[in-house]
Amino acid sequence: MIVVMKSEATDEQIEKVVSTIKELGYKAHVIKGVLRTVIGAVGDERGKPHHLESLSILEGVEKVVPILQPYKLASREFKPDNTIVKVGNVEIGGNKIVVMAGPCSVENEEQIIETAIAVKNAGASILRGGAYKPRTSPYTFQGLGEEGLKLLAKARQITGLPVVTEILDPHDLDVIAEYSDMLQIGARNAQNYALLKHVGRCNKPVLLKRGMATTITEFLMAAEYILSEGNPNVVLCERGIRTFETATRNTFDLNAIPVLKEKTHLPVLADPSHGTGYWQYVTPMALAAIAAGADGLLIEVHYKPEIAVSDGGQSLKPSKFAALMEKARAVAKAVGREI
Amino acid sequence: MIVVMKSEATDEQIEKVVSTIKELGYKAHVIKGVLRTVIGAVGDERGKPHHLESLSILEGVEKVVPILQPYKLASREFKPDNTIVKVGNVEIGGNKIVVMAGPCSVENEEQIIETAIAVKNAGASILRGGAYKPRTSPYTFQGLGEEGLKLLAKARQITGLPVVTEILDPHDLDVIAEYSDMLQIGARNAQNYALLKHVGRCNKPVLLKRGMATTITEFLMAAEYILSEGNPNVVLCERGIRTFETATRNTFDLNAIPVLKEKTHLPVLADPSHGTGYWQYVTPMALAAIAAGADGLLIEVHYKPEIAVSDGGQSLKPSKFAALMEKARAVAKAVGREI
Amino acid sequence: MIVVMKSEATDEQIEKVVSTIKELGYKAHVIKGVLRTVIGAVGDERGKPHHLESLSILEGVEKVVPILQPYKLASREFKPDNTIVKVGNVEIGGNKIVVMAGPCSVENEEQIIETAIAVKNAGASILRGGAYKPRTSPYTFQGLGEEGLKLLAKARQITGLPVVTEILDPHDLDVIAEYSDMLQIGARNAQNYALLKHVGRCNKPVLLKRGMATTITEFLMAAEYILSEGNPNVVLCERGIRTFETATRNTFDLNAIPVLKEKTHLPVLADPSHGTGYWQYVTPMALAAIAAGADGLLIEVHYKPEIAVSDGGQSLKPSKFAALMEKARAVAKAVGREI
Amino acid sequence: MIVVMKSEATDEQIEKVVSTIKELGYKAHVIKGVLRTVIGAVGDERGKPHHLESLSILEGVEKVVPILQPYKLASREFKPDNTIVKVGNVEIGGNKIVVMAGPCSVENEEQIIETAIAVKNAGASILRGGAYKPRTSPYTFQGLGEEGLKLLAKARQITGLPVVTEILDPHDLDVIAEYSDMLQIGARNAQNYALLKHVGRCNKPVLLKRGMATTITEFLMAAEYILSEGNPNVVLCERGIRTFETATRNTFDLNAIPVLKEKTHLPVLADPSHGTGYWQYVTPMALAAIAAGADGLLIEVHYKPEIAVSDGGQSLKPSKFAALMEKARAVAKAVGREI
Repeated sequence: MIVVMKSEATDEQIEKVVSTIKELGYKAHVIKGVLRTVIGAVGDERGKPHHLESLSILEGVEKVVPILQPYKLASREFKPDNTIVKVGNVEIGGNKIVVMAGPCSVENEEQIIETAIAVKNAGASILRGGAYKPRTSPYTFQGLGEEGLKLLAKARQITGLPVVTEILDPHDLDVIAEYSDMLQIGARNAQNYALLKHVGRCNKPVLLKRGMATTITEFLMAAEYILSEGNPNVVLCERGIRTFETATRNTFDLNAIPVLKEKTHLPVLADPSHGTGYWQYVTPMALAAIAAGADGLLIEVHYKPEIAVSDGGQSLKPSKFAALMEKARAVAKAVGREI
Repeated sequence: MIVVMKSEATDEQIEKVVSTIKELGYKAHVIKGVLRTVIGAVGDERGKPHHLESLSILEGVEKVVPILQPYKLASREFKPDNTIVKVGNVEIGGNKIVVMAGPCSVENEEQIIETAIAVKNAGASILRGGAYKPRTSPYTFQGLGEEGLKLLAKARQITGLPVVTEILDPHDLDVIAEYSDMLQIGARNAQNYALLKHVGRCNKPVLLKRGMATTITEFLMAAEYILSEGNPNVVLCERGIRTFETATRNTFDLNAIPVLKEKTHLPVLADPSHGTGYWQYVTPMALAAIAAGADGLLIEVHYKPEIAVSDGGQSLKPSKFAALMEKARAVAKAVGREI
Repeated sequence: MIVVMKSEATDEQIEKVVSTIKELGYKAHVIKGVLRTVIGAVGDERGKPHHLESLSILEGVEKVVPILQPYKLASREFKPDNTIVKVGNVEIGGNKIVVMAGPCSVENEEQIIETAIAVKNAGASILRGGAYKPRTSPYTFQGLGEEGLKLLAKARQITGLPVVTEILDPHDLDVIAEYSDMLQIGARNAQNYALLKHVGRCNKPVLLKRGMATTITEFLMAAEYILSEGNPNVVLCERGIRTFETATRNTFDLNAIPVLKEKTHLPVLADPSHGTGYWQYVTPMALAAIAAGADGLLIEVHYKPEIAVSDGGQSLKPSKFAALMEKARAVAKAVGREI
Repeated sequence: MIVVMKSEATDEQIEKVVSTIKELGYKAHVIKGVLRTVIGAVGDERGKPHHLESLSILEGVEKVVPILQPYKLASREFKPDNTIVKVGNVEIGGNKIVVMAGPCSVENEEQIIETAIAVKNAGASILRGGAYKPRTSPYTFQGLGEEGLKLLAKARQITGLPVVTEILDPHDLDVIAEYSDMLQIGARNAQNYALLKHVGRCNKPVLLKRGMATTITEFLMAAEYILSEGNPNVVLCERGIRTFETATRNTFDLNAIPVLKEKTHLPVLADPSHGTGYWQYVTPMALAAIAAGADGLLIEVHYKPEIAVSDGGQSLKPSKFAALMEKARAVAKAVGREI
C-alpha cells in the first residue's frame, strides 16, 4: 500500500501516518519527493484485521494506492500451471476447447431432449439448461425447478452429456447437486458471497459467470471465495459487462480472456449468447473468443427459438449451431488448439 | 411491444410476424411507414408465458421495442399516493426526512454503543450497522454475526433507535429478523432474486439498495419481487452506480431520486457515504440528496474512523455528522420539509 | 511514479528498471516488500520528454502507478483562492450563484428576444443560446451561424445580459468573439485540444463543459490546455456523463462538484438540462447542484419548447423557470449563498 | 417515431399529440392498447426542421421512441455492397485484410525509417505515425508537426508504404493532405463535427476512429457527416470504449465489428493497441478481431518501445509484430480471408 501525502502535508502529519502504519502491524518506508512525500507500507494485508485504506482519513493524506492484488489462490503467481477442471469425463482448461450448449430454460421434455441431441451431434460436450431462472421480472417464467432438473438428467442419460445448471438459492443446493454435474453461478450472483461460500463447501465443479459490473479483480476475488472454502474446481466465464452501448445487450468483454489467462490458472470460458444478446452476432464473437484464447464456449441453442420462453432472440437454431462448430474448429486449429 | 421490420422485409415476413403475435395471445396492428413497416402488439405481457422479444429472431425483423414498463405494484400508476413505511415508531416516506446512521460494521460493544449515542444526539432516528458483511475479499473481516446482532439490540435498548442491518444468506433470515427492525439488501444482492423472495415472505420492512449496474427499471423490478411476495414495506436506496469515473468510489446517481419519485410510490433514500466513498464529499452530497427530493439519508458514522475495520475512509466522525445534520435541517426547510 | 515489480522479478530486472529510471532523468528509490519490490521514481514528469509509463514494457514489471496529478495551473495547490471570472459585469466564482439561461438554439428574433426577456425577469444574469450547433445528425438544424450571433447581440442590447455561445470551428473564432461575451466549448469538444489551444490564445472567458467520457482529471487537463496558453478565465461545467442508465439522457454527475471544488480554484457550474435530458428533472437537480456547492447553473429555457428545433424535451417554459429560480434562492440561502 | 402516452392520458391530450404530429408534417396513427395508447408518427424525419422528440414535452406523453436509424449514406440499406476504399495502391474492405502499423508518434528519422522498414518486412501494407498528437496533457510531447510529416513522406519513399496520420486542427488540413495518403480522425475528435465537415470536403480517404463514449449509431452518424459532404472514402476503426474496467486501458469493443458489418457497407478496422493499452494483450485481441470479421488492423509498433515518447506500454517490438502477423495469417485463412 502506498500512501500519497498532500504537497502541503506537515512533518507531524507524515509522522502520524508512519506511526499508524506501524500500530496496524506494517513497516513504513518514507520517500520524500520533489513535490510530495509518499509512504510505502510494507506487509501482507491479507488476513490482517485492520486495513490500510482507512489511512485516507488521516490529515494530510491525499490518497492511498493499493499495490498487491488481493487474490491469492486464484493467482497464477500462486499456481503457475493451468488448472484442469473435470466435469463428468470432460476436461476443461486443457488444449481441447470445450463447448457447452443448450437452451436458456428447460421448458419441456421434447425441447430439452431434442436440443440436447442436436448439440451433441454438432460436437458440444456439455449440456446447459436452466431449471431455476433469475428473471428480471417476477411475472415471467421462473423455471421448472426440480422437474427441470429431472428432465436434464434424462437428457444426460440419453446423450451422455454432463449437465451444468444454475443455482440461485442456497436452499436448493442439495437437489441441484444431486441431478447435475456442474453448478452455475449467474452474473447477478457473481458477488453473492453467501452463495459463493455454499458452493465452495460442496464438491461439484462451479461455473462462475462475471457480473455485469464486476471488474476482473473482483471477479477473481469471487473465485477466491469458492477456492478458499475448499473447492478448487472453478471455471470462469466472461458473459458481457454493462456499458453505455445498446446495440448489443451487454458489452461482451473479450479483453477479459487474455487478461484472465495471464492473471489466473483457472479455465476461462466465453458466453457470446449473453455477451451480445443477438443471435446474428453469436458466431463471429464465438470465433473471436477462441482466437483470443478462451478455453471453451457457452452457447444458447434452442430447437425453436421463436417460441422460447426466455432469451429466444439470442438463441441459435441447431443448424446454425452446427455451422458455428464447423467454423470454430478451423479457428481453433489456426491457434493451435482443437475442439 | 413494437416490432420494427427491416426496410426490405417482404409481405410474407410481415404476415409471419402478425400471425406469430396472434398465436402468442396478442393483437397485431400494422403501420406501413414511408421507409419501413412497424407492427404494434397489443396486450399485457405480464403473466403471459411467451414473450414478444423472441420475435426478433423472425426473418425481416429489425428490432423489437418494449413499450410498457414491466413493474406494476411498485408503480405510481398503480398507487398514486406515497407509501409510508414504519420502522419501529419511525415513519419513512412522509414530510419528515429520516436519517439512518451508524458504522459500516459492528466491531465491539464500545464502538457500537458510543456511535449509536452520538448519532442519536445529533438527530438520527434509525441506527445502521452490519453484523454480516459482504466483503470483496474472503480474507477481510466478515462481521461478528449473531454476536453483532446482539450488540445492535443492546444499542437499541440504550438509545431507543430502531435497527437496520444487512442480510446476505437466506439461512440467517430468522436470527436477523429476531434482533433487527429492518432488513437491508445490499447492492451486490440487488438482483439476488432468491433472497428478494425470502424477504418478501417475511413481515419486516426492507431497505433495498440499488445495485452497481442496476438500471432504475431493474431496481423497481427488484422491489416488485418483494412486493409481489406480499411484503409492501420496501424502502429504496440510491447508493452509487459503477461508471468510468474513479475520483469517487462509485458515481452517486442523484438523478435517480427525482426519477424514482416520479415512477414509484415507495420511499427513496440516499447513501452518500457509499455513493462517493470519501468522507469529505459526504456532506455536500447529503445536502444535494435532500434538495433533489430524497426521503431520507443513510450515513456511515464511526467514533474512530481511522481504525475502522471497514469503510473507514468514507465514515464521518460524530462531530462532522452533527455539523452535517445542522446543515441538512436548513436545506430540508428550504425545500419545505423537516428532519 | 511507482513501479510495481512482479513477485518473481529477478534482481537483474529490478536493476534494469532502476537504471532506466535514472537514464530518463529521475531518482529511483527501491522498497523490498514481503511479496514484491516496488520502486519509487522521484522527479516531476511535467515538461520531461520521456515518460515513465513506458517502463511497463520492461521485463519483470507488473504495473506502473502514477502518483502526481498531471495538472498544475488548474490545481488548488497552485492557487488556493477561488478564481473569479468576469463575464461582462457578472462575476462567476464568488458567493453569488450565477444563472445562465436561454434556448438551446437561436431560432429567430422573436424566440430569442422573448426568451431573453423572460429569463432576465426571472433572475438569470447571463443569456445562453447556440448559433453554431453540434448536432449528432448532419441532417438536422445546424444553427443560424452569424445571423444567430447578431440576434444574440440584439438580445443583449435589449436586456443588458452578457451572452455565452458555443464555438465548434477555430475558423469561426473571430466572428464569435466579436458578438459574444463568453465562448462555450461543448461536451463533444472537451478534448479537442486544437480548439482548446485556440481559445486559450484569445482573451474571452471560456465556459468549458465536461465531455461524456471525460474523467475529472482529464477535465482539469483540458482546462490546463486553455490556462497554459495564457487565458486564465476558465469556468468549468458539469453536464452529465455517459453510463448504462437510460432513464436520464446522461448521468448528471453531481459528485463532480465537490470533487472539483476541492481540486481546483476555477468556478464550477452545473447544467441539469443536458445532465438529465428531461424537463421534469431539471428543477430538483438544479436545487441539488446548488446544495452540492455549484457556483452557478446553466438552464435551457424556451418560450415554446414543443416547437423547439433542438432539445425541446429538456427545456423549461419561462413560468417553470421562474418557479425554479424562486426555489433556488431558498436553497442558496440555506447553504449560505445568494442568487 | 412512436409516442407512448401515459395510462391516465386524456382524449384531449391524445388529440393534441395527433394534431401536433400533423402540424410538424407527419401522419399520425393511433393504437389503443389495453393499458395505454401509442401513436405512430409516419414520415421521414431526415431533413425536416422540426423533430418529434420535442413531443415529449406535451402533457400526457410518457416517452417518445425513435424507430428509424438516423443515418442514410452510411447504411447497408442504402448501399448493400461493401465499399472498397483505396489508399495509394492498397484496397481496404475487400477479402484481403489490411494491416496498418507504425509508431504512435514520429520522433526522429531513425525511429520512423527503421520502424517502417520493419513493419513492411513483416507484412504491413500502410504506415501509421503521428505528427500532430492529441495528448491529455499540454506538457507532454505534442508531435513534430510538419517536420514529422516530412519524415513520414521520406519513410514512404523508402518503403513504398502509403501513410496515414492524424489531423487535429482544420488549419493543418492542407499541409497534412500534401504529405499523407489518408487522414486519421482520432477518438477525441470523433464528434468534432467541424473537423468532420472539413475532411468531408477534401478528397483524401479518412480513417475515422470511434470515440470513447460514442455509440455505434453515433459513430455511423459521424461517418455520415463526412459522407454527406461528398467524401465517400471513409474507413471505420474500433479502438476501445470507456467503461468501469481498468485492467485494460479501454474496453476494446469487438462486438462493434459484426454490428458495424451488418449495419454499414464501410470497411471496419480494429486497433487492439489502443483498445487494450498493454502490449501483451495486443496479439490475442488482433487475432480475435480478424475472427470477428474485421477488414484490417491498426497496430502500434516501435523499434524501441521502452524509450517511446508516447504509448510505449502498448507498442510491440518489430519481432513481436512479425510473430503476430504469422498468427494473423493463420486465423485469416481459417475464416476464409487472406492478409
